[in-house]
Amino acid sequence: MTAPLYQAIKANIGRLVSLTETEYALFFAQLRSVKLKKREMLLREGEVCREAFFINEGCLRYFFNVEGEEKSGQFFFENAWYSDFYSFTTGRPTEENIQALEASQLLAISRESLLQLFEQIPKLERWGRLIAENAFIGLKNVNSAFLNLSPTERYQTLVKERPKVIQRVPQHYIASYLGIQPESLSRIRKRLQKS
Amino acid sequence: MTAPLYQAIKANIGRLVSLTETEYALFFAQLRSVKLKKREMLLREGEVCREAFFINEGCLRYFFNVEGEEKSGQFFFENAWYSDFYSFTTGRPTEENIQALEASQLLAISRESLLQLFEQIPKLERWGRLIAENAFIGLKNVNSAFLNLSPTERYQTLVKERPKVIQRVPQHYIASYLGIQPESLSRIRKRLQKS
Repeated sequence: MTAPLYQAIKANIGRLVSLTETEYALFFAQLRSVKLKKREMLLREGEVCREAFFINEGCLRYFFNVEGEEKSGQFFFENAWYSDFYSFTTGRPTEENIQALEASQLLAISRESLLQLFEQIPKLERWGRLIAENAFIGLKNVNSAFLNLSPTERYQTLVKERPKVIQRVPQHYIASYLGIQPESLSRIRKRLQKS
Repeated sequence: MTAPLYQAIKANIGRLVSLTETEYALFFAQLRSVKLKKREMLLREGEVCREAFFINEGCLRYFFNVEGEEKSGQFFFENAWYSDFYSFTTGRPTEENIQALEASQLLAISRESLLQLFEQIPKLERWGRLIAENAFIGLKNVNSAFLNLSPTERYQTLVKERPKVIQRVPQHYIASYLGIQPESLSRIRKRLQKS
């Protein structure tokens, strides 16, 4: 039987690879539980992101400091992973500041533990490959959205594909994520409600 | 003994993982040799990139058609891999047009063969993970260069880090890669020669 703390992460990994109970136990043994209060920082720019974080409960956002202003980069919710994959894989300092938007409970695994587990559990290396491929695909999609879609279209994509962002993230962070002023977001929302 | 055709690809893979002769033989059995004449197209936008290509000899560039003009995206030389990793992993049509800039000899492996080999050779899955991580890191670096560096700085990076591009790629393709007109590239080169 899996402890309640690990049920969601087990289901998450199980969507990509099938591990035995013994293999899951090896994986769980490497996890560390992290609790964050609302608005608490998990990582600041200049630090190295040495862990990947599975979100059991709560919500994270990362932002960049651009000329004294916070520019929201992305939002993450329960049952998803966060790491600055660039910093995590290269060991270079992150440019991201990651913060809890709600009280959050995370499970962290270090790069080091993960590489050891890849040695012990070859099937887990497949999971690592798929995670890396998905990180690449995600980054390409973000690039493509910024090149090809207007702020209104990107807002509509959020509404359709990521309703949790609309429901749980403060408006001014969403505006900053879309690269527009809060007043412009209000106008977009009013226009879409009318149409 | 490894056939001359496979020596370079063996050395390339061997830099990331260590396979036995039997495992290399399984891998080589899945390769198809591709010869391209100078200026011949390997893949056009709208097609799916179903193979990854190791360049034994020659040089490839990919370009996008932007409002009737060719915009050069990247250049690849012997002992490197090319695939549109997005199209290759998702099965979606590519936006890239890939062309031989010199007479080229490639070794191609299909996504399907590769996934089968990952089943047979778990160590090869590590190679797949590392390739995917490197694809992500490469894309992040490209993003960052476009955001943070001027055309002159990006040209200087090419001179320093990728001299083959300077030596073997026609000037107008380099200019298009830098996002500038050929005349601007001439001016940048003259200015740098003087300084």
